[in-house]
Amino acid sequence: MSDISAAMPRHVIVTDVVGRDGFQDEPRIIPTDEKVRVIEGLVRAGVTSIEVTSFVHPKVVPQMADAAEVLARVPRDRGVTYSALLPNLKGAQRALAAGIDEIHLVVSASESHNRANLNRGTQESLDQLREVAEYVRAEDPKVALVGTIATSFGCPFDGAVPVDRLLWVIEQFRAMGMASIALADTTGMANPLQVGQTVAAVKQRFPEVDFQLHLHNTRGLGLANAFAGLQVGVTRFDAALGGLGGCPFAPGATGNISTEDLVHMLHEMGIETGIDLDALIAEAKKLPDIVGHEVESFVIKGGKACDLHPFEEIKIARSAAA
Amino acid sequence: MSDISAAMPRHVIVTDVVGRDGFQDEPRIIPTDEKVRVIEGLVRAGVTSIEVTSFVHPKVVPQMADAAEVLARVPRDRGVTYSALLPNLKGAQRALAAGIDEIHLVVSASESHNRANLNRGTQESLDQLREVAEYVRAEDPKVALVGTIATSFGCPFDGAVPVDRLLWVIEQFRAMGMASIALADTTGMANPLQVGQTVAAVKQRFPEVDFQLHLHNTRGLGLANAFAGLQVGVTRFDAALGGLGGCPFAPGATGNISTEDLVHMLHEMGIETGIDLDALIAEAKKLPDIVGHEVESFVIKGGKACDLHPFEEIKIARSAAA
Repeated sequence: MSDISAAMPRHVIVTDVVGRDGFQDEPRIIPTDEKVRVIEGLVRAGVTSIEVTSFVHPKVVPQMADAAEVLARVPRDRGVTYSALLPNLKGAQRALAAGIDEIHLVVSASESHNRANLNRGTQESLDQLREVAEYVRAEDPKVALVGTIATSFGCPFDGAVPVDRLLWVIEQFRAMGMASIALADTTGMANPLQVGQTVAAVKQRFPEVDFQLHLHNTRGLGLANAFAGLQVGVTRFDAALGGLGGCPFAPGATGNISTEDLVHMLHEMGIETGIDLDALIAEAKKLPDIVGHEVESFVIKGGKACDLHPFEEIKIARSAAA
Repeated sequence: MSDISAAMPRHVIVTDVVGRDGFQDEPRIIPTDEKVRVIEGLVRAGVTSIEVTSFVHPKVVPQMADAAEVLARVPRDRGVTYSALLPNLKGAQRALAAGIDEIHLVVSASESHNRANLNRGTQESLDQLREVAEYVRAEDPKVALVGTIATSFGCPFDGAVPVDRLLWVIEQFRAMGMASIALADTTGMANPLQVGQTVAAVKQRFPEVDFQLHLHNTRGLGLANAFAGLQVGVTRFDAALGGLGGCPFAPGATGNISTEDLVHMLHEMGIETGIDLDALIAEAKKLPDIVGHEVESFVIKGGKACDLHPFEEIKIARSAAA
């Protein structure tokens, strides 16, 4: 029997992506004031890494039109690293002008998803991202670059994504000088065995790379996949407050793994995040008023496992619970 | 780095418990006809182990008053093992008269939960269950006995449950001759690290016992906990169609892990169950009409990971998905 905790980290960095992957799927345009208040809440709760927006064309994603304004208004004196997703040179210019700390460049491992998402093939996107990376490095070498690989664990059109295809994309991101690469389960197709085996395989080939995981909970496997990632030594995970961020193919399906559920799991397992979970849950509970619908998160309904109940509360039907 | 798949089984037996743990929490009394139709649906989908009811006093759990009638009407010629939970000698007499295949005897590892659930201390319950086990063995040795340990991974009143306490209960179940013991996370307090380590510890001490897991998804960790169980070689899991079965302390919180979500995870990882997942999902989709509310299950909303989409369906906002 293997020791399931052998490679588990003691500390994990959780990047909240509600400002980008969460809000971008919301049909109602969320006022900038409210976006800033959500980010301020995350900072108050101790989140130190926040993907705050994306610098994309406002006509393509109107929800992200206020990217520069959001970044200008969030607290910059609290040691938080603010990142943004962007697709091209124009986005990079806007992001640098707005004072971004970290840039996430995305390409899909699967050809069909890349065409759907970016209207070009994967290699063409990578060629474009190389120019963006070179531009950013020349303009401001302090800005960190992360390569994000969408559909790393499966594509809703093409199905399985071979590990060789991931290695091919990683090789090109490495050639661009990226030290961190995020494997994204964009439409929630991964299973924990696959996550563990895939991350182990890419780490073996690229031991110097800091591999991060961006997981969705579309089929309820998000936290199981995060656990598998921890077991193979992943120390950075994306998650969205309230589990916001849907899937265009499954209306009503769950979005990103929820930050509060992930932090709860980590803390229950004794893994530190530096985040105040109670404060985080309090912020998550404000989201329904902001987005106009309920949010998908377990601990805002079920409470923390460590929240005990007084004996007097007992109303179990005798002989009925197991 | 440990091999995360080292001890994973190739085949798993899933016991559906919707007829017992699922329905017992429903406020509306479900007509016997409908209960039987749900069980028939499970059998059609290939489920071969079904906890169909509990033989408890009808005044205590009115929902289970039709236990004998349900058992009399479900298909008995399809190789399905029908089990029932029961608390005492009277329940055992009724269950044997009704022709049960397998009896689940439950005690809580935690003293407070046992008092809340069974109105007596854990040792007193174990003494009573010993008499029940002896009675069943004398009356019909063909009827299998499973010892179920509620609150194995935490008690909503007492908090942490030491592994020594589990070992103490297991020792007594072993002395009653039980070959199978189910560890139940009754109120969904377990985390995957704890499940893996706890099951590994009890298996090391009692290698001859078939340890099963009964998991709830109160904090979204049910499938992560199941994955951890698989990693330490567990081959039998309880789950409820539609994830029915709530938690008395968390209104609106999720219940048992859903059978369709568990089977989906297992099949995606290449683990066989003998269950037709599409048929199972079709049965789960009938539940809202029966129970009068939506059910908590991911794959009935998100679909299976292997359900691919035609490229024409694409409506991703360009440059926006990761």
